[in-house]
Amino acid sequence: MSAYEQLLHRMQLITDLGAASAALGWDQETYMPDGAVESRANQLATLSTLIHGFTTDDSAVALASEAQAASSVLDVRKQRVVATFVKDHDRARRLPAELVEEQARTAAMAQDAWKRSRQASDFSIFQPLLTKTVDLKRREAELLGPTAHPYDALLDMFEPGLTVDVLTPLFTRLREGTVDLLSEITPRQNAVSDAVLYRSFGKDTQLATATSIITKLGFDMTTGRVDLSAHPFCTNFGNKDVRLTTRIREQDLRSCLFGLIHEAGHGMYEQGIPDDIARTFSGQGASMGIHESQSLFWENVVARSEEFWHWAFPILRDAFPDQLKDQTPRSFYQAINKMQPSLNRVESDELTYNLHIILRFEIERDLLTGDLAVADVPSVWNAKMKEALGVEPPNDADGCLQDVHWSFGGIGYFPSYTLGKLYAAMEWNAMQKDLPDASSHIANGNFAPILGWMRSNIHAAGRTELPREIIQRVTGRDLTEQDFLAYVGAKARNVYGF
Amino acid sequence: MSAYEQLLHRMQLITDLGAASAALGWDQETYMPDGAVESRANQLATLSTLIHGFTTDDSAVALASEAQAASSVLDVRKQRVVATFVKDHDRARRLPAELVEEQARTAAMAQDAWKRSRQASDFSIFQPLLTKTVDLKRREAELLGPTAHPYDALLDMFEPGLTVDVLTPLFTRLREGTVDLLSEITPRQNAVSDAVLYRSFGKDTQLATATSIITKLGFDMTTGRVDLSAHPFCTNFGNKDVRLTTRIREQDLRSCLFGLIHEAGHGMYEQGIPDDIARTFSGQGASMGIHESQSLFWENVVARSEEFWHWAFPILRDAFPDQLKDQTPRSFYQAINKMQPSLNRVESDELTYNLHIILRFEIERDLLTGDLAVADVPSVWNAKMKEALGVEPPNDADGCLQDVHWSFGGIGYFPSYTLGKLYAAMEWNAMQKDLPDASSHIANGNFAPILGWMRSNIHAAGRTELPREIIQRVTGRDLTEQDFLAYVGAKARNVYGF
Repeated sequence: MSAYEQLLHRMQLITDLGAASAALGWDQETYMPDGAVESRANQLATLSTLIHGFTTDDSAVALASEAQAASSVLDVRKQRVVATFVKDHDRARRLPAELVEEQARTAAMAQDAWKRSRQASDFSIFQPLLTKTVDLKRREAELLGPTAHPYDALLDMFEPGLTVDVLTPLFTRLREGTVDLLSEITPRQNAVSDAVLYRSFGKDTQLATATSIITKLGFDMTTGRVDLSAHPFCTNFGNKDVRLTTRIREQDLRSCLFGLIHEAGHGMYEQGIPDDIARTFSGQGASMGIHESQSLFWENVVARSEEFWHWAFPILRDAFPDQLKDQTPRSFYQAINKMQPSLNRVESDELTYNLHIILRFEIERDLLTGDLAVADVPSVWNAKMKEALGVEPPNDADGCLQDVHWSFGGIGYFPSYTLGKLYAAMEWNAMQKDLPDASSHIANGNFAPILGWMRSNIHAAGRTELPREIIQRVTGRDLTEQDFLAYVGAKARNVYGF
Repeated sequence: MSAYEQLLHRMQLITDLGAASAALGWDQETYMPDGAVESRANQLATLSTLIHGFTTDDSAVALASEAQAASSVLDVRKQRVVATFVKDHDRARRLPAELVEEQARTAAMAQDAWKRSRQASDFSIFQPLLTKTVDLKRREAELLGPTAHPYDALLDMFEPGLTVDVLTPLFTRLREGTVDLLSEITPRQNAVSDAVLYRSFGKDTQLATATSIITKLGFDMTTGRVDLSAHPFCTNFGNKDVRLTTRIREQDLRSCLFGLIHEAGHGMYEQGIPDDIARTFSGQGASMGIHESQSLFWENVVARSEEFWHWAFPILRDAFPDQLKDQTPRSFYQAINKMQPSLNRVESDELTYNLHIILRFEIERDLLTGDLAVADVPSVWNAKMKEALGVEPPNDADGCLQDVHWSFGGIGYFPSYTLGKLYAAMEWNAMQKDLPDASSHIANGNFAPILGWMRSNIHAAGRTELPREIIQRVTGRDLTEQDFLAYVGAKARNVYGF
């Protein structure tokens, strides 16, 4: 076996263990009986320890250095596969196995506590486990550093190369643009009603319709499936087994439909990872930001466009004839694009969404430096909500307990959502240059060319290119908020008529 | 850490990997998309290889010998935990990792092929994978031997210490007793009608009723759950996470109800494994025969008794008032105990069931020695069915493709079912000595004393005792067919009135 093949074999072993771990995680969120929480935590911790061991042990050091040394004979793609392993390997070697094991065990317990905490709307149930999570993340950042800001070390895991220094001015410009646009919208708020979305919609029909729509978009049900969970997510156990979950609210049409399209965007990315890299460390999304660009592209750029509802409205009206009888494609398009500050990130609109993210970013950043105590998260959350969005959560379930991310230790993840929006707008502009009929394709329910463009321009690369390389290759430019602000501004003017 | 604690730690690692593997197996049978077959096979093979490695590598040799050497200071239960590891470790060291990996991969592919084969009722789809499975089993038996008969090596995995030499006369006596009893029943066949069972019963109601009944029996839904699959099974990922599956047939009331009670019997055994041994190699059933004694005790001794239907009939009649309006507890009891040769093992009665097993035992035994070719299985199956039971399958789906066992390599397993019946009858006699009111408890739906007796007499031991030790401790005797023949004879006389 060549050095590359030996490394490949090791990566297959590790990705198989990762798949098993992901399957146990999926099961925990969908079907696992409550009494199994502790034993599941043990199982996940064991897998995590093994994955860490096989990624970092002496034989992995030898495999990495031999593959690197022999790398010049490989094609560029394989060279990148080697480099990705070396990067993850170097990072993981900085983290002792005990820390990794403790994080996995804490995450399993914290996810359970978060669920109960949210159900009871009582932050104190989750608080000790969030404290533990933050402490472990602080230790992790120290071990991965030194970095200019401790948050940079965590950010790098989700968006390689991005730092607080870059993020701060980007978020400042984005906030300013958002506030400017909101000031145009607020006096015109009465022009758009979204009341139709909160009529009563049967749960089974919601799920069937949403599932049918993502299948039309291109989510492949022979290598994927859809289940229910408290918080929607997408996970995968290889590129041939992609699991989406959704939640259904009878009195809110958006939750299931747009939630599932969002997760299907992630899922189509995973299904688009080519087989040659599927069982390597490069067989995944390029970054969380690029991943979110896929989910948000389908959810917002496609499924919240006026063109989309020319095609989709008749389908939805067939499913809910009574509830939608007073609607037109245009009125429905306006309803789903009402831009108005609200409590919930997932259910907020494209424009104000980013204000939710900036708030979370600030809280995470300050928790990490210790400038904010965990006990103060609910009050600070509520204060920031009031300041940024002008609304205040009536309870913690609708406030700082609304997101699952912190419970699994995903600190540093939230900015990815906003980066995803910025990337998605840039991708859409680039796509329209290659596919001048893209909007018509959407209006005709012809999504194959759209997905095809994503497959070849974004999915095929997997993680063999950095996000910055992908965006430069596809758009010819660096990350910017300008495309997004132009896109969302045009939509606001269309929806609100100014 | 003491030598025992070090060994314990290793066993925890291995049982956690086993739990992950079982979870992937469960998922494959319940929710996995079809396109994932190959990647799931890779994942299972990887886990299997790791489990084999951690059980057999040099460090396992050291752990085993050190724990054995230091074993005299331990209590008897812990000594047995060490001994169980050593036994499995010795067995596994005889099997090279490549064989184990190939068996896991073959099993995953064979299970899929078996499903398709059964669906198409076309043995040729399954044949190449069964051939491969038998070849691999033959190699395994050789490596584990020498034994008097190659089948003995496989039998020992399921029923430690049992051999073809013992099984043959036992099965001969059992067959004779069965044939004698059938000769009394056959002329009286018209006295009992089971037509009620084949009326139309709504699937959802069947599942809800069966689930409610197993909960009353004592299956704990906080550490267990029920799903659907092509073939019913019970699996577990520790003693706190026990998964049952069932299948529902609208025109056959028995399939879901008795199938689920059967699996719940297995499940309550797993839920009854004490925590102190749960993550060791002793944290499972003593043998497959003892395991089957639990499932068959609940399915037959309890749920096919006249007393049980005094309690359960009103429940079932509430669920299906129209279908059961012409029935009494006694007529229903008679219907579910009609003893008559049929095609399907799972759906056959307590008496003729054993003839199905003897047939399978003979086929397995002869496949292993090569006296029977895989290609001839369908014709030999059909001939033996005709000879033993007087009926002939119209197609392979109802014939040699009806059971999942061979597809996962479970050759040597089938005798366990009949052993389970013999053990269950012996346990029932012993239980009645300790609990003279056992029958009244059943009639009152008071199952806690029954389950309690099983918990302390059978479950608590896990695999720290051999089946023979358990049966001798509980009944004071060795395995015999006499208790079963007396039990089933009394039932036949009650049902048919002779």
